[in-house]
Parts: sequence; C-alpha cells; structure tokens
Amino acid sequence: MPLPSPSAAVDHAAPFPTVGDDPHGAIIEAALQRCLPGEDRCPPLLAEALRYTVLGPGKRLRPRLVLMAAEACGGDAPAALPAACAVELIHAYSLAHDDLPAMDDDDLRRGRPTCHKRFDEATAVLAGDALQPLAFELLAGLSPADTAARCCAELARAAGAEALVGGQVDDLAGAEALVETQQLRQRLERIHARKTGAMITVSLRLGAIVAGASQEILSTLTAFGERLGLLFQVTDDLLDATGDAEEVGKRTGKDEGRGKLTYPVLMGVEATREFADRTAAEALQSLEPLDATADPLRALVDKVHHRSH
Amino acid sequence: MPLPSPSAAVDHAAPFPTVGDDPHGAIIEAALQRCLPGEDRCPPLLAEALRYTVLGPGKRLRPRLVLMAAEACGGDAPAALPAACAVELIHAYSLAHDDLPAMDDDDLRRGRPTCHKRFDEATAVLAGDALQPLAFELLAGLSPADTAARCCAELARAAGAEALVGGQVDDLAGAEALVETQQLRQRLERIHARKTGAMITVSLRLGAIVAGASQEILSTLTAFGERLGLLFQVTDDLLDATGDAEEVGKRTGKDEGRGKLTYPVLMGVEATREFADRTAAEALQSLEPLDATADPLRALVDKVHHRSH
Repeated sequence: MPLPSPSAAVDHAAPFPTVGDDPHGAIIEAALQRCLPGEDRCPPLLAEALRYTVLGPGKRLRPRLVLMAAEACGGDAPAALPAACAVELIHAYSLAHDDLPAMDDDDLRRGRPTCHKRFDEATAVLAGDALQPLAFELLAGLSPADTAARCCAELARAAGAEALVGGQVDDLAGAEALVETQQLRQRLERIHARKTGAMITVSLRLGAIVAGASQEILSTLTAFGERLGLLFQVTDDLLDATGDAEEVGKRTGKDEGRGKLTYPVLMGVEATREFADRTAAEALQSLEPLDATADPLRALVDKVHHRSH
Repeated sequence: MPLPSPSAAVDHAAPFPTVGDDPHGAIIEAALQRCLPGEDRCPPLLAEALRYTVLGPGKRLRPRLVLMAAEACGGDAPAALPAACAVELIHAYSLAHDDLPAMDDDDLRRGRPTCHKRFDEATAVLAGDALQPLAFELLAGLSPADTAARCCAELARAAGAEALVGGQVDDLAGAEALVETQQLRQRLERIHARKTGAMITVSLRLGAIVAGASQEILSTLTAFGERLGLLFQVTDDLLDATGDAEEVGKRTGKDEGRGKLTYPVLMGVEATREFADRTAAEALQSLEPLDATADPLRALVDKVHHRSH
C-alpha cells in the first residue's frame, strides 16, 4: 500500500487535546527541548536522532496528564515539568522501538518517516536506549529525595516487563492459540492495560506525587487513569479501522491487515463505539471526588473520546 | 567464518576474576535470579528471554566492582547488592542490543547463541528494553532516599547518550574520515571512556555511595575506574586480535575483519601489550590512598591484566 505523504492540511503538531487556551503545550515543548543533550555532550548523530524522536509532532498526552494531575492536586505545573518530560521520553522511545522492522515495521509516525527510516535501524535502537536513562535522570533530580526515589520506582514499574514492555511482547505474540471470544477479550484488555494504561496511569500518579497528594487522591487518579487509558486505546483502534491515514498521521487499516487483535475486530465497529461511550462516562464518573481543579482532566476525556488523530 | 561450537573445556561461567575464595560470586548470582520477574508477572516468553540474557555465563565484573568498592569503603556487600544487580542488568541489556544484526551482528556471546539468535530480534530488543527500568527500580528501592536518588542519577548518566549509548554510536560510526594517528587515538580513547569506562567507574561509585564514602574516596575510585576501564578494553582488543574463539567465548578476529578501530590495529600487538602493562601499573598506583580493604580491587587489576577470556 503506498504511504500517504504528510500533508500540511492536518497539523499533527497541533496541541492535543486543546483545553481552553492550552496553558501546558508551550512549557512542555520548551522543557523537552532543554532536557535533550546537545552535540557538545554526545555524538552529533545521536543528538539529532534524539531531537527527531522526541521533538517531532505529538499530542503530548502523557506530559499533559502529569501537569493536569499536579494542578488538580494543588501543585504547580513548573515543579512537575521534569516528570512530564520523563513520561514523554519513555513514550517516544517505545514508539521508536515499536516501529522497528522486527516489530510493527512502520514507515510513518506522526505524519513523518519513522526514526529507522529517517536514520537507520541501529540509530533508532540506540536513540530509544538513550531516552530511558534520561527519563530516570530527570526524575532522580526531583526534590525532596523521597519524591525523586518514589517517582523513579513508579516509572520503572510502568515502563518495565510487567507493563509497557510486557504489553508489547503480548501484542506481538498475536492470539493464534485463542479461539473463544471471552479469552480474546481478556487478552486484549491485558495488552491495553500493560501497553497504554500503565503509562497513562503513572503519568497522573507522578504529577500527583510531585504535588504531595494524599493516598486517597492517588487512588482516585489511578482509577481514572485506567478508564482513560482504555478509552485512548479503544479510540485508537477505531481510528485505525475507520480513519483516514492522512488525518491520523500514520498508516491505517494496518491492524486488520496484519491480523492484529483489536476491539473493532473482536466486537465490530458499532459495538466498539458504544464501548467507547461507556468507558468515557466511567472515566468522568471516577473523577467525582475531585473539585473544579480537575476540570481540565474532564475536558480531556471528551477530547480523547471524539479525537480524529 | 564458521563459528566455533561452545565447548565444555572452557567454563565461561567461571567466576572472573577469581579473588581468593570468590566471596561475591554466589550472592551476585542469587540476587540476579531474585530480581528478575517470573512468568506470573510478565509474558512467559519475556521472562525466559530476561533469564537467558542476564543469567547466562558472565564474568560479573561490574557487580563485583560494586561490592568490592562498598567493602573498601567500610560498607557491607549485602546492602550494595541492589546496585550490583543494577549495573549488571544495564551491561546485559547493552550486550543484547549491541549484538543485534543492525549493530555488531554477532551470533555468539559468552559461548552461547546471542539473544536474537536464541529467540528473535524483537524479543532481543524488548528484553533489553525491560532491563533498563528494572535496574532503576532496584536503585530506587535503596535506603535512605537520598542514596536511592543519587544512585539513579549516577547510573542514568553512565548509561545514557553521553556515555554508554554515545560510545556505541561512536563505535559504529567507524573512523573513515580520520587519517592522522593522533586523531584516531583520541577517538578510540573517547569511545572506550564512554562505552566501557563510564559503566566500570559508576559501578565503583555506586558501591562507595551505598557505603557512605567521602567525596575524596569517590574521587580516588573514579580515577581508578578510568584506568581499570581502559585496561579492560585494551585487553579485550588484545583477546580479539590474538585469542582463541573457543576460549574467549565469542568470535575473534572480528574487529580487524570489519575494519574496527582497536589498539592493536592502531599501534600493533606488542605496543598494545606494553600499553596494557603501563595502564595496569597506573591503576594500582591510583589505589594508593586506600588501605588493605581495597586489596580485592588490587588483585582484580592483575586478573584483568592477564585474563584469557
């Protein structure tokens, strides 16, 4: 299938989701730029690949969640910026590795050539490898030290074998051996919980931890994160099944083409839309214990629910 | 070139370097086994690949350095075990990724098939990806929290773009554009400092930090680590140029075969041996401020200097 060329008609760098006047977009971009090493500190090729991988167009959903959660817990966004950058670095590395020929073999990401197409496979592997320690270095610099250590431990679990990486292994393994719909559904939910849910949930938790939130509020945000993560994945599946590649910014229809397990494959497009509606309602409901400072998180649910890329 | 089959005649699992009765070997192996997630916590394929990558035969040089440094600073080995495992996990991940077809394309490592030959490329990438956060999770659990945060920050820098990963990028880039011996020598030293020296030095530093060492002792161990790292790399180059594949446990002669920059290529085998002798002497000299508790580190210099694998 020929790849669509990136189009200026869709701005994949547009802040997503746009909440009010998007107070977080600019400070996230500036902080991401600042945290990457320049050519004076690492090989120029690596510095370039890191900038390409991290600073390309992106929705910045996870760092926005960090900042929104910090503010919903009475903290301020600037103090949570290292944690915001850390989750985006992990996300960016995981995309660069998932796109590799040995894995999803994707040529297009966020409307541009993937890292291994723009550079080469070795550089894509190594750029991803360098982003992981950088994320932990940012968290290790948080103050006080117990916040730093706690954030490192939380991100490590979300990015590790039991969550992010385990989800990708499950995702690649396919579902050949499973024949019953109930088994398939359970498997799909586990993949999503590991691959998407854990990083979305930990983003909210890191923001809350930096802001000194109570255990009760952490539990509320964890429950919210699980629903939001599921909503994000379900809408991602819908975009792949029904969306336009140019607008989505990456190849569409690829999931079905490679026999990948998705909600539309499992339950059909209409039932998947209804599932997304229910999940969005549950996400909003889980935020009830929080006051108006959590309104940006509520607005975000609607944006994810009705997104077109 | 046909690969030699692993031979029982050379025990690549043999403790290296053997210091006295090898007090550290067994507790390092046990701690590495304990820290890896089982099949109850991550996909069985990933659990298996992690065990294969980490628990295979290995010299365990870096974790031994952590424990020796802790003891040389008046600390005890058990308290430093999480840090010892952390550096070995980072080392194991870097080997699995360096061996990939897109990089060094090696089939044999430590006398066994490399991770991507035993499993597949995707699994080798993902096993490596999962080992990085696990290393930081172990450090984040150290107590008190400021030790945890400091160790995370130190390992992050040593494993990041400016050190370990940057060294591999430089190493892959080759030296085509450089014609003067002086330029080549500088480049080679920078590659070694980044790729080998930084992780060896940080191993010593983590052990010392866990033991509560003074800034002065940290500086002493840092200077020692730089010489030991160089010695290790120079002897590695010599083994590749002159060693027997069966004994070394990996393909030899490959550096020259692929036009890789090494000390024997740059200065000849004899001058490289003399350089190794000088470097070993400097390493021992740098330990002078430390008392007899550092004797295992002194014995280690001799073992690295005269190693056959």
